[in-house]
This record gives sequence, C-alpha cells and structure tokens, in this order.
Amino acid sequence: MITVNIIGSGNIAQHLITNFENSDTVILKKVYARNSNALPSNLHISKIITDIAHLTQADVCIIAVSDSAIQEVSENLPFTNQFVVHTSGTMPMQCINDKNRKGVFYPLQTFSKNKEVDFKTVPICLETESESDYKILEKLAFSLSEKVYSISSEQRKSLHIAAVFVCNFVNHLYKIGNDICVENNIPFEILLPLIEETASKIEYLTPSEAQTGPAIRNDNNTINKHLEMLNDITKKEIYTLLTQSIQKDANKKL
Amino acid sequence: MITVNIIGSGNIAQHLITNFENSDTVILKKVYARNSNALPSNLHISKIITDIAHLTQADVCIIAVSDSAIQEVSENLPFTNQFVVHTSGTMPMQCINDKNRKGVFYPLQTFSKNKEVDFKTVPICLETESESDYKILEKLAFSLSEKVYSISSEQRKSLHIAAVFVCNFVNHLYKIGNDICVENNIPFEILLPLIEETASKIEYLTPSEAQTGPAIRNDNNTINKHLEMLNDITKKEIYTLLTQSIQKDANKKL
Repeated sequence: MITVNIIGSGNIAQHLITNFENSDTVILKKVYARNSNALPSNLHISKIITDIAHLTQADVCIIAVSDSAIQEVSENLPFTNQFVVHTSGTMPMQCINDKNRKGVFYPLQTFSKNKEVDFKTVPICLETESESDYKILEKLAFSLSEKVYSISSEQRKSLHIAAVFVCNFVNHLYKIGNDICVENNIPFEILLPLIEETASKIEYLTPSEAQTGPAIRNDNNTINKHLEMLNDITKKEIYTLLTQSIQKDANKKL
Repeated sequence: MITVNIIGSGNIAQHLITNFENSDTVILKKVYARNSNALPSNLHISKIITDIAHLTQADVCIIAVSDSAIQEVSENLPFTNQFVVHTSGTMPMQCINDKNRKGVFYPLQTFSKNKEVDFKTVPICLETESESDYKILEKLAFSLSEKVYSISSEQRKSLHIAAVFVCNFVNHLYKIGNDICVENNIPFEILLPLIEETASKIEYLTPSEAQTGPAIRNDNNTINKHLEMLNDITKKEIYTLLTQSIQKDANKKL
C-alpha cells in the first residue's frame, strides 16, 4: 500500500481525492485545504486538516494547488527528506523547496467540476530526482491510470503549450461554432457528431492527413464568402489567421 | 423504395454510393462520374455511365460534385421537372438549374477517403421548394441517418462557417499540438485522451462552461511563458489571438 497526503481543494485535488478514496492500493491519510468546503463529500471529516503544521508524513505528499502557491506551500511543510510532488503542467520540479525530495505528478487532462473523468485513460506525466522515487510515483500513477509517461520539466512545459492548443483553444472554437448557431437559430447539437468525428479521426490519421475544408482546398471563393458573412472582427481575424496557417503548412509539405 | 441517381466521384459521392448500395429502401440506379476510377469497388459496373446524356430519371438525382461545378452539371441534365438536389454546405438551393425541382441534401460531417463514417449519426440538412419533395428527401435521409434537420439556404451558409471552426480549424490546432510534440520528442498519443475528453465534454456542458486554461484564468504568468517559448511566428499569433478572444468573451459575460 502507498500512503498519500493531498494539499489543495481545486479540480485536480478533488478528482485525486475521490479516486484515492476508492482505491485498493492507496491510503489517503490527510488532506490539507484552506477552503475545506470545496472538498468532495465522500472524504471523511477526520482526514481534513486546516493547519498545515499538523500534516504528518506519507509515502507521497501531493501539492495540488495553483502554480503560484506551490513554492510557498512546499516551504511550509512541517517535515524534511520526504517525497513531495506537485501536479502542475507548467512549473518546474525545482520549484519545490529543497528540504524535501522532489517530483512531479501531472495528470494531462481537462478537469471540470461537473464532469466526471475516467482516470484510467488519463496520461500521467512523472518526473523525479531519483530512480527509487520514480518507482514509488510510478506505482501510484498505475494505481489510477494505464498511461504513465516519464516527462522532463523541459518537455512538460512544451506539452502544456500543446495541451492549450488542442484543448483550451479547441474549446474556444467550439464556443465560436455555438455562437454562430445561436445567432442563426440552429441547434448546436447538429455540430456534435462533426466534433466527435474530428476528434476520433486523428486516432487513425495524422492531423495533416485529416485536414479538410476550404483552406486546404485553396477554395478562395468559399473563404471570401465566409469572411464577408462574419460580422464579428475577432472571429474574422481568427478565420483569416487559421486559414493562412493551414495554407502555409500545406505549402511547406510541397 | 426510392430510386436515386448520383453524379460525382468525390468523398461524399463515394460514401453515399457505398451506403445506398447496402440499403434496403433505396435503389441506386446510375452513377455518372467523369473520373469513374475513383468510384467504390462495390458499385456494379453496369450502373456507371460516362455520358451525362444517358442519365435516366429517378426519384432523386443527387449532384455531389465540387461547388463550382453544380450549376453547369444541373444545366446539362437530360431531363426536366425531376427532383434534383446538391450536397453542398455553401451553395444556395437556387444554383440548381430552373428546369428541374430543386433541393439540398447536405450531410454535415467530415469525410476522408481512408476513414469509414457511420452514416447513422451524420446530421443531414434538407431544403426543398415544396412539402411533397421534402417528404421524399426526408425518407431518403432517414434511410441513412437518425438525425435529419430542415435547414434553409441562409442557415446552411452560417452552419458551414460554424463547421469550418469546429472541424477544419480544430484539426489545424491538433496539427500544431502534433508539431510541438514532435519538436520535443513527446509521443503525440499522449494528447489523444485530452482531445477526446475536450470533444465529449461539450455534450454535457456548454462551451463556455467547459472553458479551462490560462486564458480564462487570466494567468498572465503562464501566458507570457508560453509566448516566450513559441518560436514560430504564426503559432505565436494564433496563441495571442485565441487568448484575447477567450478573455474578451469572458468579459462580455460579466
């Protein structure tokens, strides 16, 4: 069995708490959160502590707080030479205070409070200072997920940018699609099969192979009609820039 | 039974041919294609005609050719007062020659040659001049799909723009994610669960509710780090513009 402490009450902390509480191989010892109201209801009240000085040791102490708070929280931990990891996609491993052994446990997924996530399919990116700590963290990760990767701090920074493009920015394009539907009395659900197919296509095709639409066809007639119809300046700019970028990439390949 | 002729040999024509050839309620009479080599192998050679003048009547004649060719093809049809539809997302119904009854049969999906599509989940957008023709087209559409919508030419133009955003542009963002992974020796597969979850999330949440990431959190520290790391000018511009657009939308809601 692996014993774990969690610090934090945000989306990731909540998902980790819920999963560890249901785990056969992980014992969740304590949870420290400034805002204990946000913690999941299946967490027993005896496990919640409100003073970080009362945190005791565990095999892994997971700091799942906002990026800007990691350094301070790791300084305030009331123990030394323990194994402490953070869950951030952007912060280097080194931001954890030197008094403890450092690591990163970064689940690469989009977590929203009102949508459950099947952790088995969530890639977990690990980084540690030593091989022995890697083995502990790997065991913890495999207790949650089938997909565990060794990713350095440098790689993780780039991976996080890639994630912003394929998740946050993609969702914003869904938002624009939704806006256009609402403005024209079209139910947004009509776009859902297209969205699903676009996402599942790239499990079989590379994104370059999967590219369709007026930009890659150099269909200037359609592109110009679309630009004429788009009233919103920002939407027009996004349409223009992404069209140019698709065409630039296609020309590179030639 | 409904009898159908198809004109064309592109992606949509091929998918329609394959599906109609396997249908219990549709009889595919003839297929006219300039490039008959591109036609699916399950199509019997006796159904292929290479001179449009030999095309005979059917309940529905489907013109599945490029947008710019629809008008000319519909002019060249060797019959009048028949029911003729096109499959374009952008062209108005009126571009079909006046000598026949007009309609639109627009399957809203992304079709690639090497990826099969389950037509049952493909929304089909219909438009006709008369209610009686609508009933014929509706019957044909329901023989393929469970999702059939009445969409006017005006709505269809907007819907096509929305589709470009949520499909073609989204795929390009996948391409950028792939580029970043390749540059940093990270397997692209690590992003697939995130891509899947981002797509399936908006079946339960609105795109606004589902928005996560540095832009919506106003996390300027992360945004600036990402912009510093992006070497490619176009990727940097896309990052900046989409971040601004997410923040503009968030401010509108306040």
